[in-house]
Amino acid sequence: MQWYVVASLLTVLTSSQGILTTLSQSDGGYKYDYATIPFLAEIFKLLVSSIFLWRECKKSPPPRMTTDWKTVRVYLVPSIIYLIHNNVQFATLTYVDTSTYQIMGNLKIVTTGILFRLFLKRKLSNLQWMAIVLLAVGTTTSQVKGCGEASCDSLFSSPIQGYILGVLSACLSALAGVYTEFIMKKNNDTLYWQNVQLYTFGALFNMGRLFVDDFRGGFESGPWWSRLFNGYTITTWLVVLNLGSTGLLVSWLMKYADNIVKVYSTSMAMLLTMVLSVFLFTFKPTLQLLLGIIICIMSLHMYFAPPSTLIDLPVAVKAAPQSVIEVSVDRKTDS
Amino acid sequence: MQWYVVASLLTVLTSSQGILTTLSQSDGGYKYDYATIPFLAEIFKLLVSSIFLWRECKKSPPPRMTTDWKTVRVYLVPSIIYLIHNNVQFATLTYVDTSTYQIMGNLKIVTTGILFRLFLKRKLSNLQWMAIVLLAVGTTTSQVKGCGEASCDSLFSSPIQGYILGVLSACLSALAGVYTEFIMKKNNDTLYWQNVQLYTFGALFNMGRLFVDDFRGGFESGPWWSRLFNGYTITTWLVVLNLGSTGLLVSWLMKYADNIVKVYSTSMAMLLTMVLSVFLFTFKPTLQLLLGIIICIMSLHMYFAPPSTLIDLPVAVKAAPQSVIEVSVDRKTDS
Repeated sequence: MQWYVVASLLTVLTSSQGILTTLSQSDGGYKYDYATIPFLAEIFKLLVSSIFLWRECKKSPPPRMTTDWKTVRVYLVPSIIYLIHNNVQFATLTYVDTSTYQIMGNLKIVTTGILFRLFLKRKLSNLQWMAIVLLAVGTTTSQVKGCGEASCDSLFSSPIQGYILGVLSACLSALAGVYTEFIMKKNNDTLYWQNVQLYTFGALFNMGRLFVDDFRGGFESGPWWSRLFNGYTITTWLVVLNLGSTGLLVSWLMKYADNIVKVYSTSMAMLLTMVLSVFLFTFKPTLQLLLGIIICIMSLHMYFAPPSTLIDLPVAVKAAPQSVIEVSVDRKTDS
Repeated sequence: MQWYVVASLLTVLTSSQGILTTLSQSDGGYKYDYATIPFLAEIFKLLVSSIFLWRECKKSPPPRMTTDWKTVRVYLVPSIIYLIHNNVQFATLTYVDTSTYQIMGNLKIVTTGILFRLFLKRKLSNLQWMAIVLLAVGTTTSQVKGCGEASCDSLFSSPIQGYILGVLSACLSALAGVYTEFIMKKNNDTLYWQNVQLYTFGALFNMGRLFVDDFRGGFESGPWWSRLFNGYTITTWLVVLNLGSTGLLVSWLMKYADNIVKVYSTSMAMLLTMVLSVFLFTFKPTLQLLLGIIICIMSLHMYFAPPSTLIDLPVAVKAAPQSVIEVSVDRKTDS
């Protein structure tokens, strides 16, 4: 499968996630325990990956699977980073309001680019760096508060701790992505075996979180398993299946494409969600949304288009397209 | 002189124009007749150009000057286009409010690019086209109404005539610029002689406008020459000198650089004015201003940076830098 098909699918599913989550609410709130959603999504991903792995194991030759603890334990790391990230996120929100947090979340695009370069040693051209900055600027532009909206002055008026934690949060989020790409590409193990390891730890950590929530709440609403499917509707199940499916697509992209492709997919999804909200909900289209979309499409084109289509290369280069592609589109050789 | 020095100077002076005009007001209004400013600026430009031409004429060999009517009459055209433009602008403002008009004014950047390509037959790379669109998006972003500001909903709610006239206005403005570039580069006449022709017609048309204003107003405040310097302060004179100087710089750029350079200069000036207004006046810095500045700087870099610094060209190309420069930076050969 081509990476851009998977990336497009990820954009559509990530976008649906926002729409479905909104649709799953009733009377402006959740009738179910939202913390159970990621846990069930991990279980769904684990089941799907196990079935695919089992089918592959029946074939010959059997798939490549490294099972020593030294290799398995690295699959713990993304879960640990996400655990820290969740706590930093919680701490950030005690200092800044949600709209400032959302705006700062766009920093993740730039930190992913930086860690992608530093940690994975992947070279980007200056134009690609500019494209990454423009993607962050574009998504931020679409989120600029229009006139008439409440809580205007908060963006530059939060305590300094809020901004530091926001930057830390963006770094942790990028680190989790970059580390996942690192372990997915480190060896030639089959994707399904890598997924099984990743999602086993993911399910365990999510279960741990549900336990911790119960202890913190003094078991007031009973243990988590007793209210696992409470208030679930068909839409809630669609939210679980959709979240699980996006996870599987991200995992595929980490192995066969890269973090930047993922960042573009999810950024485009955010814009798509806003456009769909205009039609589905009472979301008013703004000039800044239109501008954000133009900026992000330009950025996408700057990053992924073959350089020879962007600038007028001299004839000598056009005659030797192989060398152009080799040097500047090396990102795509992974897919 | 290098084109980028002149372009930077134009940015500074255009930016000062906004600041000086604001400073020349007292009690929120003009104590002088603002329509006299462009007329006096034309006279100033005519005087300066005449002095320079006279000095050149004393040298030997004498400067190149074509004086037959067939050549002279083309210098009428920019004045005629500006006359039509002023009337279209007036008509547009009967349909849309000033902030919508200001936002639509950014279309001029794109129409200049299009007429530059069609009329002057100048080729731009895809990256340069993207840069031009981004420049328009960037200046528009900086002008997005923040929350708490009045008149929010007007942007998409004007009658269709307003938008059509707005587009027409952007086309006329671009046409005037592109036509001026065309006549300045058409022959090798000295710049000062070309200026003298341009500004003579400019002064006459501006004088005509003052007469028309007087007739329309029924000479209630007397003929224009009787109130020419009424209420003028030192700041008003600075506004005149500054406007005249920007005109002379634009004329230089039309001959030795091009319209795109001018568009970048004036767009950057708009952002500079907004930044200076934060310090000089009670203008509150907004997130959209910061985003607009980032977008415009990226656009500037995309348009003017040598392509070899933007993408990783294969070694074969780097070894032959001459051919790279020749093909893709041909815009600069004019300067």
